[in-house]
Amino acid sequence: MKLRDIAEALGCRLVGDGEVEIAGVAGMEHAGPGHLTFLANPKYAAKVATTCASAVVLSFNANSFNRNAIVVENPHLAFAKLLTLFTTRPRVPRGIMKGAFVGEDVVIGKDVSIFPGTVVGDGVRIGDRVTLHPNVTLYEGVVLGDDVTLHAGVSVREGCRIGNRVILHNGTVIGSDGFGYAPEGQSWFKIPQIGTVIIEDDVEIGANAAVDRAAMETTHIGRGTKIDNLVQVAHNCVIGEDCVIVGQAGIAGSARLGRHVTIGGQVGIVNHVSIGDEAMISVQSCVIGNVAAGEVLSGSPAIPHHARLKSAAVFPHLPEMRKSLARLETRMSIVEEELRG
Amino acid sequence: MKLRDIAEALGCRLVGDGEVEIAGVAGMEHAGPGHLTFLANPKYAAKVATTCASAVVLSFNANSFNRNAIVVENPHLAFAKLLTLFTTRPRVPRGIMKGAFVGEDVVIGKDVSIFPGTVVGDGVRIGDRVTLHPNVTLYEGVVLGDDVTLHAGVSVREGCRIGNRVILHNGTVIGSDGFGYAPEGQSWFKIPQIGTVIIEDDVEIGANAAVDRAAMETTHIGRGTKIDNLVQVAHNCVIGEDCVIVGQAGIAGSARLGRHVTIGGQVGIVNHVSIGDEAMISVQSCVIGNVAAGEVLSGSPAIPHHARLKSAAVFPHLPEMRKSLARLETRMSIVEEELRG
Amino acid sequence: MKLRDIAEALGCRLVGDGEVEIAGVAGMEHAGPGHLTFLANPKYAAKVATTCASAVVLSFNANSFNRNAIVVENPHLAFAKLLTLFTTRPRVPRGIMKGAFVGEDVVIGKDVSIFPGTVVGDGVRIGDRVTLHPNVTLYEGVVLGDDVTLHAGVSVREGCRIGNRVILHNGTVIGSDGFGYAPEGQSWFKIPQIGTVIIEDDVEIGANAAVDRAAMETTHIGRGTKIDNLVQVAHNCVIGEDCVIVGQAGIAGSARLGRHVTIGGQVGIVNHVSIGDEAMISVQSCVIGNVAAGEVLSGSPAIPHHARLKSAAVFPHLPEMRKSLARLETRMSIVEEELRG
Repeated sequence: MKLRDIAEALGCRLVGDGEVEIAGVAGMEHAGPGHLTFLANPKYAAKVATTCASAVVLSFNANSFNRNAIVVENPHLAFAKLLTLFTTRPRVPRGIMKGAFVGEDVVIGKDVSIFPGTVVGDGVRIGDRVTLHPNVTLYEGVVLGDDVTLHAGVSVREGCRIGNRVILHNGTVIGSDGFGYAPEGQSWFKIPQIGTVIIEDDVEIGANAAVDRAAMETTHIGRGTKIDNLVQVAHNCVIGEDCVIVGQAGIAGSARLGRHVTIGGQVGIVNHVSIGDEAMISVQSCVIGNVAAGEVLSGSPAIPHHARLKSAAVFPHLPEMRKSLARLETRMSIVEEELRG
Repeated sequence: MKLRDIAEALGCRLVGDGEVEIAGVAGMEHAGPGHLTFLANPKYAAKVATTCASAVVLSFNANSFNRNAIVVENPHLAFAKLLTLFTTRPRVPRGIMKGAFVGEDVVIGKDVSIFPGTVVGDGVRIGDRVTLHPNVTLYEGVVLGDDVTLHAGVSVREGCRIGNRVILHNGTVIGSDGFGYAPEGQSWFKIPQIGTVIIEDDVEIGANAAVDRAAMETTHIGRGTKIDNLVQVAHNCVIGEDCVIVGQAGIAGSARLGRHVTIGGQVGIVNHVSIGDEAMISVQSCVIGNVAAGEVLSGSPAIPHHARLKSAAVFPHLPEMRKSLARLETRMSIVEEELRG
Repeated sequence: MKLRDIAEALGCRLVGDGEVEIAGVAGMEHAGPGHLTFLANPKYAAKVATTCASAVVLSFNANSFNRNAIVVENPHLAFAKLLTLFTTRPRVPRGIMKGAFVGEDVVIGKDVSIFPGTVVGDGVRIGDRVTLHPNVTLYEGVVLGDDVTLHAGVSVREGCRIGNRVILHNGTVIGSDGFGYAPEGQSWFKIPQIGTVIIEDDVEIGANAAVDRAAMETTHIGRGTKIDNLVQVAHNCVIGEDCVIVGQAGIAGSARLGRHVTIGGQVGIVNHVSIGDEAMISVQSCVIGNVAAGEVLSGSPAIPHHARLKSAAVFPHLPEMRKSLARLETRMSIVEEELRG
């Protein structure tokens, strides 16, 4: 592909020689001749001058050092799109392969791939261009939209619904029973979890995550939300659109997240908490109360991020503060005595 | 079912019209005519007056607002039992289905369902009315009791024993090797993990959890204990009866939990620690020493919960405390000088 | 086996009767006649006198109480080797079993075992004496070395490479997509994850862990590193040799660990951080900056372990410190007034 054609495809400005042939894309330090690379972080601007790449994607205000360049508003996004353009292989549907098991009353769209070891339960509905990698299990009555990809080992439990273009990575479980018991003396009586899970369009969930079905209604993951590996979403949670939930975070039962909320890695959100749009919770924090829209919290328990940074900076000084306090008490007593004695 | 019959089945007092027909159960806000709902949290008592449900399960001391009601000591438990009554479908055993693989010298009870993709190793013993969903793996010599349900993707490793009525959700692993190595210079020599896991009756474990086999003896999960998703139980742990271990908690090697212990989400328990009966550990805490029966701890490292709440409330004030301390030092020096100078 | 032969096999000194027959090994408290046991922890030295075992492995400086003994420099290591000697059953290769699915252009070494339900993708290369337990999935182009063991439910994604003698426990995922998105307005545009994962020789990874493929280059796990259950290793991480990463720890993107680093359970390492050789990070800590070789850190955020212990000991005293500070302010004002007023 010529650089000129790429610039046109992205609708971006070209600087330098548009005739240069681009065969692939690569990171700044690994790129060679024929590669297109990109400058996302201005910190590395000087590398543009010396990269071996044939051309660079960079932002309007970056120095192109007389290199061939595509100038864009958002180089990170442009690069992601280029990478998609260059690396997406055409999908060859493989049909229902030998060794896959399909139950009764199943409706399957066109151009699907269902690999060996995958088991499709009775009454399941599967859209067009769906890929079910090996050893996936769809329980009774599951509904999958179009262009869904479920990786090996994924389980989707009874009646859960998955939207279009959803990707679930390996081992992830959708619709396991919520963790609900009523105390009966010293024992725990299981509360049937008869609700479901709805996962909207364009959601992606990493490996070995778990999204529990609701006790009675619906656990809901909003359109475009991205969830990392080993995340737990408990029963009855309602997660808004375009949220980002980083690895090993845990969202307890009936928590509600607004739109475009960011949850850091290993964060815990306790049950019944409500988190407003655009809020951000820092890594390893624990949210124990409602969070207003736009708030940035950190710590366990979580407090405003700036306050937490300041207090954390004081924390290592606690022993000296305690000693100093004790010395002040003594000095004060002496002063008081001298003054009044 | 008539409301009167339900009241009789539960052995509870009826208020209002016993002839009303109940077709199902639902949460207070989603219930409609023909539904029975329940009031678990007194906070929502006013909703009893306005719910569309045909009847309400509530506790002795709650106002029934002249609605049809079943009056019980523990409405949460009564509702769980009703839900079970109304929602449990009769189990239809499906036998050993095509696509399931059963090894040699396997003993299988009556009325089982073994789904496609499930592999039963040599010498396994399976009780009556067991359901093995698709893609389950039982290694050699595993023993399952009666009425066990293993969901898709579960692995039970060599020789582990699972009691009656145990439920393991999708992807959970029982009996993986404990994490044990002896240092050999800079490297790590694997210590064979030749112990086993015993899971007693009525245990339920969530999705993608892991219970390691003991190094030499037994990792033990006591009767009636409930374990949530993504929990780690390390080798040689002994967990008592009726414990509750919430999502993403981790119990390190050789820890011992008494009876009816509650472990919050994302809690860490370090190795060789002993936790007494009825103790409660709050979300995201880290327990680094023994815990007496009945103690309630929180924080990392964990301290008594009340003390922790009070200290956490002071934490955001640390910067101002440090400044105030510095000012006091200065004021003190000035006072001392004035007094003595 | 005679005790004398065992001592010779280990190249160690024998004390007492070399003719005694050893039939097996067991822990100090569970050992009986015919057993060899070991004293690893000097705390339990007195038990050597009373154990029912026929012989004890102990260190040079321990009292043998006139028991038959093998005296070694490192009893823990010696015992691990003995346990391996006594408990390793000869591996019987089972070939490609009925119910396993093997794709096209696959190269398979000698003496392998490939169990039912396992799916080997096109172009995969498998070394000698490899065991693939049931329901394993190898995607296209995966390469496995010799003597590799993949337990049931493991997934290895497109093109990832696994060295010799690697053990992956059940449900672990190698090569799932890294968590990378470019913001596009309010939405997230998926950045193709076109890199790979390389796992070097002698690595062992526990159950339900996840190692993401790199965005463009390689996520790398160094030789001899041991990783526990439910650990997350994000894209582009480079982990050195002989590291130990305990359960539920999470290593964020592009983090670098040196050689022989110890990461405690539930630790979080934020992205792009570099951790020097031999550093140790204590349980549940959060590392937010680079760590020098040999440092021992703890806390969230992590600070030197000793400083953290001291500050954590002061933490419960914060409320009384705050009160005392307030009282001092008052006393100071009174003194100042008395002095100057």
